[in-house]
Amino acid sequence: MADAERKLNNGKSRIDFQADPSKYRHWKLTVDGDVATLLMDVDEKGTLFEGYELKLNSYDLGVDIELADAIERLRFEHPQVKVILLRSGKPRVFCAGANIRMLAGASHAHKVNFCKFTNETRNGIEDASEASGLFTICVINGTAAGGGYELALAADHIMLIDDGSSAVSLPELPLLAVLPGTGGLTRVTDKRKVRRDRADVFCTTEEGIKGKRAVDWRLVDEVVPASKLEEAVAKRAREFAAKSQRPAGAKGIALKPLARERSAAGVEYGMVSVELRARLATITLRGPQAAPPASAEAMVEQGAEFWPLKLARELDDATLDIRANEFDVAAIVFKSSGDPAQVLAYDQFLDANKEHWLAREIRGFWKRVLKRVDLTSRSLVALVEPGSCFAGTLAELVFASDRSYMLIGKRDGDNKPPATLALATVNFGAYPMSNGLSRLASRFLADPTDLDRAKAAAGETLDAEAAERLGLVTFALDDIDWEDEIRVFLEERASFSADGLTGLEANLRFGGPETMESKIFARLTAWQNWIFQRPNAVGEEGALKRYGTGQKPAFDTRRV
Amino acid sequence: MADAERKLNNGKSRIDFQADPSKYRHWKLTVDGDVATLLMDVDEKGTLFEGYELKLNSYDLGVDIELADAIERLRFEHPQVKVILLRSGKPRVFCAGANIRMLAGASHAHKVNFCKFTNETRNGIEDASEASGLFTICVINGTAAGGGYELALAADHIMLIDDGSSAVSLPELPLLAVLPGTGGLTRVTDKRKVRRDRADVFCTTEEGIKGKRAVDWRLVDEVVPASKLEEAVAKRAREFAAKSQRPAGAKGIALKPLARERSAAGVEYGMVSVELRARLATITLRGPQAAPPASAEAMVEQGAEFWPLKLARELDDATLDIRANEFDVAAIVFKSSGDPAQVLAYDQFLDANKEHWLAREIRGFWKRVLKRVDLTSRSLVALVEPGSCFAGTLAELVFASDRSYMLIGKRDGDNKPPATLALATVNFGAYPMSNGLSRLASRFLADPTDLDRAKAAAGETLDAEAAERLGLVTFALDDIDWEDEIRVFLEERASFSADGLTGLEANLRFGGPETMESKIFARLTAWQNWIFQRPNAVGEEGALKRYGTGQKPAFDTRRV
Repeated sequence: MADAERKLNNGKSRIDFQADPSKYRHWKLTVDGDVATLLMDVDEKGTLFEGYELKLNSYDLGVDIELADAIERLRFEHPQVKVILLRSGKPRVFCAGANIRMLAGASHAHKVNFCKFTNETRNGIEDASEASGLFTICVINGTAAGGGYELALAADHIMLIDDGSSAVSLPELPLLAVLPGTGGLTRVTDKRKVRRDRADVFCTTEEGIKGKRAVDWRLVDEVVPASKLEEAVAKRAREFAAKSQRPAGAKGIALKPLARERSAAGVEYGMVSVELRARLATITLRGPQAAPPASAEAMVEQGAEFWPLKLARELDDATLDIRANEFDVAAIVFKSSGDPAQVLAYDQFLDANKEHWLAREIRGFWKRVLKRVDLTSRSLVALVEPGSCFAGTLAELVFASDRSYMLIGKRDGDNKPPATLALATVNFGAYPMSNGLSRLASRFLADPTDLDRAKAAAGETLDAEAAERLGLVTFALDDIDWEDEIRVFLEERASFSADGLTGLEANLRFGGPETMESKIFARLTAWQNWIFQRPNAVGEEGALKRYGTGQKPAFDTRRV
Repeated sequence: MADAERKLNNGKSRIDFQADPSKYRHWKLTVDGDVATLLMDVDEKGTLFEGYELKLNSYDLGVDIELADAIERLRFEHPQVKVILLRSGKPRVFCAGANIRMLAGASHAHKVNFCKFTNETRNGIEDASEASGLFTICVINGTAAGGGYELALAADHIMLIDDGSSAVSLPELPLLAVLPGTGGLTRVTDKRKVRRDRADVFCTTEEGIKGKRAVDWRLVDEVVPASKLEEAVAKRAREFAAKSQRPAGAKGIALKPLARERSAAGVEYGMVSVELRARLATITLRGPQAAPPASAEAMVEQGAEFWPLKLARELDDATLDIRANEFDVAAIVFKSSGDPAQVLAYDQFLDANKEHWLAREIRGFWKRVLKRVDLTSRSLVALVEPGSCFAGTLAELVFASDRSYMLIGKRDGDNKPPATLALATVNFGAYPMSNGLSRLASRFLADPTDLDRAKAAAGETLDAEAAERLGLVTFALDDIDWEDEIRVFLEERASFSADGLTGLEANLRFGGPETMESKIFARLTAWQNWIFQRPNAVGEEGALKRYGTGQKPAFDTRRV
């Protein structure tokens, strides 16, 4: 099976996750008071890769990057918005789902990354509702098929026009021999709680389900005749807006374009450096250069320059860039530099202002960025060295890592003081993983008193031996051993099977409970990835390849 | 990638899941009072397939079939046994895990089935402890590597000899580029609750971990010097025996060989028929031919002929046979025939005697058989027709099915009374699925009042329309539509991608919570199946193929 990466459009050499609303090709975002309309109107020609067209509001990763951007902007730039109306700009079709030609020609790695990002985007829509009171109402004015219906499933409320033809469907299995893998199966059973046998009927019925049955089976929340649609949408928008606590009078901040400078050696952001070398990506995060602002108003004034937000946006972009463009990177090494006391001061500032909408959004953003790190299929390593500032929020990267190493004492010939680690309130619940637990609670599943001991140490400056004693780092090493140990470890890591590590880490990182969100990335995604390897889907005679050719797929009939 | 089924040893044409202790080749089962010793002493030549030898107590499916049999026999034939000592009969090695040559030469389907069965066996060891007070102490006298350590992980207590060399290890990733997929990763994080970074170190350290560190890291419960081993084992056995409620004086029943007659058309058991035709396996279960016995003593007297036990054993064997030998079967169709009142009478009999060890074991066995049905990768369909007896325990097969159809009224020209369905106490908790919920609770996740309504209807004789109204069947159909609807459905089902259906069903069947057990079959198994498709593991230059050849595997270094 050929598995080359497809050619990007317009001569680009990398997938870029930054988007600019003034240049959106696929979405129209309009804001009217506390209601925003996000209109999907995909530009057929505006594809990320060469070789296909985005007909019928089908999407590729490029479309989803704009969607993810729009959701973030609504959170930060339009804090007064309480309801998003998710609608289609095309007649008789809401969205036809992921573009099949794109999928059929995509490398396995791109398919996996595409699904991961689109899943994160849909989780982000749900998070906006849960964490921020920014509700989404999906208005389906035609066909919502496959990924189109999966997008609707992320909304708080699904309205389907009752015109005798508009339907929702998950035709992936009958048409393409793959799963509705963008959360579809999991949201049908665990969010919409559709009875399992009805879910079976629904997911094997190509034409989908419409009208009253769609409501009875819990697939949509209501069906509305065309003549009453706008009135009904306005009514629902008012109802949801009334439930939202978003700040009516607040003025947003602009998410300015990130400053990035790319060279052969890596990327330089403002507060983040990425160094690419020998199949490693070393991400260095820099601590704040000044004390926190004097007030919440001053934080708003700083806007996207406010250190915690700037750092999080840069880290997010760096993570996505490595995921999608640097397949040969075996491990991400996290380093930091700066004053831990200043990092903690920012955490305290955000704690003190946690009722302020912007502080809440920034904490929420960090939560999502850290979840993205958890789900990144690269080995994650934290190196806690003299001069580093892994404290509070930044310490989460140590706990997100598969392993962490901390240097004991000073380095020979270096006058930097010994490395320290510090915990803060923020490490005990502000940043839950997708399993619903904090990283420290996930770490200390065996014995809750370990978590208590860590809590008791919050605020202390922990040296390497103390951190190791508390179970916060994997190994504390002397300067004599440091270089060799870490070199040998990283070389060994890079020598292991890339796939084996992906599977291993996807299991070891998520001990303990599963949630709907974690099930999407475990049960659903892992099965989908398996299917994305099977000839029935991706082989030359498989359903993905043969779709639209007029030739039926030829299946291996063996059940495995 | 060639994926032919390997040749079975001794000219056999099917894998047989029945075993006879007098003919075990790999295990020695001895019973001494309330302690049984299960000695693993694998016969190198006694392989299931041709082409490899089972060195160093490595195993294949044949070895595991005997192990599963031994555990069941201890539950039924030796009710007085309270503790199993799981030991090796070989010097310096406990168990080297799944045989690598076997895996390297196995078809994908066999690998998947092998892992599923071995997982079920290990879950069975844990179930014996939880449900029956039959505890397992694993005594590791040498190397417990890979599947060897995974077997130990199923025990209640792991003792490791402290001889400076004996170690436990999960070297699958570094050696073979696959996962410790027989529950290993999940039990390390979720049962032993090993800290995730230590788990990472452990699972990437080929030589494993021994001595005090193995205890400190929670990998084993104790290390014991060789000179004190027997004394320590005896002491632990006494401690565990003291906690068991198993009946000291009880006499077991013999699990006599199943009567089976195989023909081109299928298999005939005593209470079960399997008809194989047109990619369908129709399993018909027959109700009891007589009323329940008068007393628990009379039940013991009937032994393996006691209807609920006989039926469950036959259903289990039929399910396993289809799984492992009939890959082309797309769907299993469940039918039944008999008197529903008699089925309910047996359920009531078991309810009334639920404190009796044998009644408890039979209920527990049904629980496991039904879980095996849930995990069977074939579409499951129940047809509730006139003359059927889907009541109480047998109704669980309707709820385990992906879809169920029930005929309304009589058949033209048939004097059998209309089909009925009946619920009993047993449907509301006696048979939890691997997600911890009853099948009805899993079915009615959306609205608990649906479950209440079903409870209120327990004991009633429900016709098709009543059953449909209560949500107990997918469709109630008239005689006029029946044949066509079901034919079209089954033909359509068989036309879909086999893999797609496997993934779809593995998601839709398990809505709601996940448990350690369900995580093993979801997160861990699905990732392992993916890896079992990836060239880094199974390609010509992959680690599984190259293991032991002296040649290093060549890996695609891209992280997906």
